[in-house]
Amino acid sequence: MTKVIAVNAGSSSLKFQLFEMPSEEVITSGIIERIGLEDGNFTIKYNGIKKNVVCPIPDHQVAVDMLLKALIDENIVSSLDDIEAVGHRVVHGGEYFGDSAVVSEDVIAKVEELCELAPLHNPANLVGYRAFNDALNNAKHVFTFDTAFHQTLDQERYLYPLPMNMYKDLKIRKYGAHGTSHKYVSEQVNEMLGNPAESRVIVCHLGNGASISAVLNGECIDTSMGFTPLAGVMMGTRCGDVDPSIMPYLCKKLDKTADEVLDIFNKESGMLGVSEISSDSRDVEDALFKDGDERALLTSLLYSRIVAKYIGAYYGELGGCDAIAFTAGVGENAAYLRRIIIDDISKAFGAFLDEELNSIRGPENRVISHPYSQIKVMVIPTNEEVMIARDTMRLLGL
Amino acid sequence: MTKVIAVNAGSSSLKFQLFEMPSEEVITSGIIERIGLEDGNFTIKYNGIKKNVVCPIPDHQVAVDMLLKALIDENIVSSLDDIEAVGHRVVHGGEYFGDSAVVSEDVIAKVEELCELAPLHNPANLVGYRAFNDALNNAKHVFTFDTAFHQTLDQERYLYPLPMNMYKDLKIRKYGAHGTSHKYVSEQVNEMLGNPAESRVIVCHLGNGASISAVLNGECIDTSMGFTPLAGVMMGTRCGDVDPSIMPYLCKKLDKTADEVLDIFNKESGMLGVSEISSDSRDVEDALFKDGDERALLTSLLYSRIVAKYIGAYYGELGGCDAIAFTAGVGENAAYLRRIIIDDISKAFGAFLDEELNSIRGPENRVISHPYSQIKVMVIPTNEEVMIARDTMRLLGL
Repeated sequence: MTKVIAVNAGSSSLKFQLFEMPSEEVITSGIIERIGLEDGNFTIKYNGIKKNVVCPIPDHQVAVDMLLKALIDENIVSSLDDIEAVGHRVVHGGEYFGDSAVVSEDVIAKVEELCELAPLHNPANLVGYRAFNDALNNAKHVFTFDTAFHQTLDQERYLYPLPMNMYKDLKIRKYGAHGTSHKYVSEQVNEMLGNPAESRVIVCHLGNGASISAVLNGECIDTSMGFTPLAGVMMGTRCGDVDPSIMPYLCKKLDKTADEVLDIFNKESGMLGVSEISSDSRDVEDALFKDGDERALLTSLLYSRIVAKYIGAYYGELGGCDAIAFTAGVGENAAYLRRIIIDDISKAFGAFLDEELNSIRGPENRVISHPYSQIKVMVIPTNEEVMIARDTMRLLGL
Repeated sequence: MTKVIAVNAGSSSLKFQLFEMPSEEVITSGIIERIGLEDGNFTIKYNGIKKNVVCPIPDHQVAVDMLLKALIDENIVSSLDDIEAVGHRVVHGGEYFGDSAVVSEDVIAKVEELCELAPLHNPANLVGYRAFNDALNNAKHVFTFDTAFHQTLDQERYLYPLPMNMYKDLKIRKYGAHGTSHKYVSEQVNEMLGNPAESRVIVCHLGNGASISAVLNGECIDTSMGFTPLAGVMMGTRCGDVDPSIMPYLCKKLDKTADEVLDIFNKESGMLGVSEISSDSRDVEDALFKDGDERALLTSLLYSRIVAKYIGAYYGELGGCDAIAFTAGVGENAAYLRRIIIDDISKAFGAFLDEELNSIRGPENRVISHPYSQIKVMVIPTNEEVMIARDTMRLLGL
């Protein structure tokens, strides 16, 4: 038995799950938030216990040391040497990584080079890696990239219709995101389909960020996120794709720079911008069903129809569809949005929900379509952490 | 019998067709180019004759006077009073016009107000109108708007997922374009289908500019162009939709303003940018089939797959599809692109071309799909001028 810790380090946070492998049992999990602030916040769960500490956490090294000390103090592990490996989520793997990678000097150099394409994420991911590397002398490290699963896209699906030198010189192309989730969910779907030789799966990862992917026989052939995670469908606060002329028009009308307008696109748009209520689909749902709020209705229809259009496009690309899977916060919980989305495509593609199955909540993988639906519709709770732990085991030969 | 002239005035050009109505016989047609330059160019065709004059044409008024003088001098009309009406193409009708409109002070004021949304087009359209209005004392005038056919879109299809005040205060929404062509072609398709009570038609207007629309029972329910004609599919030199983050990234990397990057998106992208050969699909076709050029292949695949994705999305929105129609320069002539597009969707939607029918060229409406295709695929040469003449007759009660 092997203990592997899966780590997701953000600029001011660090999420972790410690697994017993290969059983995939979660020994402990938690999150350290507000790193760098006086009121840093450390939460750890194990054996049904949840502990929370608020204290100054000046940097990621302190955060990692707190976490490792807690593992010993709470007798979660008897020695830090028990942790054989650490799997780190890294957002951007560019064109270098079509799979997770064992960390080496070369791998680190590439992740550093890619900081320019993910300036908010890759540097934080590296800080997290260095903190664990310093604290755990014997553990081996693996990077799992959010972009890796989408590296199987054909050139005519990842290129933009821009001058070719923008790809050759500036690496502007579609990279996609949420790849670890899309991979996990599509694998779960294939298992639920009985692992057929051929399968056409559309994964709707709908969280605060959201992306759709088309997975043919286990391989991603298209995805909605692009050069950055702003592209594609409408999200909590992000607009997704809009007419590229809107930005310069807004620069002039609002007397703002392109970066300032980009901020509006990233932080004030999507569900928040349209509803003027919230970026959280639960608040929009409440406004819709409790207050009959018209803005909430419009938001729900706009959101659903954009997702439905991607499903139609990917149905075409896949040559049909065996299963549509919903995952992540909104996809797993917002039954009303799943219903509008599937209603929108039911006439064209013969997909129908079972209302009762759609209304069930829970942590299990489940089919929510009616038996006569021509496409199986599923809810698959995502689990990027277990994917990171599995890749870590596989790549280290553990 | 009534003589109606259909006019399309650009910033430095003026295209015209004089119709005998209601027979829709074209009495004469032509184009005046390079208005404002020393080497203005006037071409007129009638009775199988084509005449061309090169001379200074300082402004639109001079251009219109030249045209009208030629009509008399060449005995095309016996008196200018024979011309009862002029139908003018106007690019942007905003939310004011869901149909063509008889010109009035109020209509002119609205078109002037909309100049801001179509700064290259609406002012030129108004200049053309004023020149004809000054020259023809008795004729009545009608404006036909490129956006009108798309005014039937639902709010959740024309709104962007941006803060609502951008729609309320700045009128940022999807307006679409090529509406007169989409209307004409979808009407022709419905006629060829035998004018059924219900019809689901996808029109692919593929010219140097390109847009796709979904037409349900004669009404447009979605279209690919957006706030401006940059949006949607890849075109001759325009990129269509791209990740909105690319513009600010390019501003920084290339040290350019948003407007300068917009210029690249509008003028150096699309087929031209990807192929590095030409913005003209005929040149790309030559490079592909004569030279086996790999860039030409990539361009053709990229172009076709983007169109195919819209067809998939609109198939979903329409609840299926009875007919797909190709029109405009590329759509009417590029058999190889039609083949790639339909091949891309054949497995999902059961659409198949008849290779022989697809290879025929000509001015007739024609079906190019195989008899067992589940979707009828057609080539419909567009005719915006006759649509303008028809609307002019209808609105003036002639």
